[in-house]
Amino acid sequence: LLAAALGTPDRDQAFNLAMGIEFIHTATLVHDDLIDNASTRRGITTIHETVGVNPAIIIGDYYFAKGANLMASIGEPSIDLAISKTVMTICLGELLQLTSRRDYDQTLEEYHNKIARKTAALVETCCYCGAVVANLDARRTEALRQYGFHIGMAFQIADDVLDYTSTAKELGKPVGADLRQGTVTLPLMLALQEPLVAPALRALFAHEPMTDADHEEVVRLVCGSSAIEQADAQARDFAVRARAQLAAFDDSPSRDTLERVCDYVVERRT
Amino acid sequence: LLAAALGTPDRDQAFNLAMGIEFIHTATLVHDDLIDNASTRRGITTIHETVGVNPAIIIGDYYFAKGANLMASIGEPSIDLAISKTVMTICLGELLQLTSRRDYDQTLEEYHNKIARKTAALVETCCYCGAVVANLDARRTEALRQYGFHIGMAFQIADDVLDYTSTAKELGKPVGADLRQGTVTLPLMLALQEPLVAPALRALFAHEPMTDADHEEVVRLVCGSSAIEQADAQARDFAVRARAQLAAFDDSPSRDTLERVCDYVVERRT
Repeated sequence: LLAAALGTPDRDQAFNLAMGIEFIHTATLVHDDLIDNASTRRGITTIHETVGVNPAIIIGDYYFAKGANLMASIGEPSIDLAISKTVMTICLGELLQLTSRRDYDQTLEEYHNKIARKTAALVETCCYCGAVVANLDARRTEALRQYGFHIGMAFQIADDVLDYTSTAKELGKPVGADLRQGTVTLPLMLALQEPLVAPALRALFAHEPMTDADHEEVVRLVCGSSAIEQADAQARDFAVRARAQLAAFDDSPSRDTLERVCDYVVERRT
Repeated sequence: LLAAALGTPDRDQAFNLAMGIEFIHTATLVHDDLIDNASTRRGITTIHETVGVNPAIIIGDYYFAKGANLMASIGEPSIDLAISKTVMTICLGELLQLTSRRDYDQTLEEYHNKIARKTAALVETCCYCGAVVANLDARRTEALRQYGFHIGMAFQIADDVLDYTSTAKELGKPVGADLRQGTVTLPLMLALQEPLVAPALRALFAHEPMTDADHEEVVRLVCGSSAIEQADAQARDFAVRARAQLAAFDDSPSRDTLERVCDYVVERRT
């Protein structure tokens, strides 16, 4: 909606777009929570915990279709093409995440590719589609697309940091959830590059299975290393690159808010 | 493709449409087989049995998106609207099926509503979209839509009959699978209306849980009643109504094949 407000969107088109993307995003969350066996999301019980696994699969599918239907109602084929391609990309990101579980030796490039697909692609497409309904020119459409991509990267890295540094109450989901699912994220990868921390981490990873105490010890080791600071710097770097894209736009309330989003994604504590 | 061939479709558009619908149909099958815990489909091992439940959820999602992407590439918003709406309808049909498991007293109207959503809506949309890419006029587009709906109804009833009368080898999946999942279909519902058969069936349904021998006995009782013949007559009636819609079209090879489909759906043995 903020991206669209930089141009002259039709109000109904912009709302159908926003609702459509919200449905599609929610569809991916319903299926992800099921796959991750997560019991809470945004502080409340997840769908599969509430109604069961099988209905949750179908409810996710319904949300995908409802989102696609709202977006199709706009009548802009480029939007339908972009969102369907993005869902394909998100699925590939999720498959990469599943197949790299407990792979503690993946490269930073692999991590970046994964979060680009899993998260940044969606924010990129939100901003791109907003530009389409706002009838922006090619240069500004591309600037918004880039803005969205970099915001998405900053958001996901900050999210991966919060999984180590936040409290369950702030986060609305259990701390260390990524670790318990075997999802290896940037803080852990950076901590594994520190000679004084890595041996203790690898000793814990050798436990089969890892206990709750092991997981807590990994979180403690990562938080005690310089990994959190380094990961935070990476998130801030992506946020800076997002902000730079806004130079393509004149001052306006929407532009101001998009600029504040750059701060929010790296400063939020929940 | 046969529906499109009744008009003058662009070849690439017709193929993208057909491939898109095939992906979307396959997506629903991947998730259905997972929900039904089915081990075989078309004579081969199902996706979730091969790669696991979690990847199968994501692969289904990917197929939905790939199908939507192919259909969006046609650039006809009415097609994107129709297929997304149809997936919503299919999901509602699946939810109805889940929530009516082991409900042996549902009405024939409820059964017809369920298979209309679960199956006929998709065939209806295939034919409708074929008409759209073929640039057919409104009257013939509607005739094809109706043709597809009635073929879908005939197909699903015949499929439900085959689940009782076929052999596992012919079917490519286990016989009596619906029954074992608690899915109550037309042959069973009609058998339950026969005073000489119903008491024995209800006695078996009272077993908790029902054994394999119980399921085999239910199949034997249903096949020994007049339910199979009655259900078959219903399927043939829908096929007759499908065929009647073809009067809107001049003779052509595609029309001939669509007419033979009316026989095929009720006469196939596998």
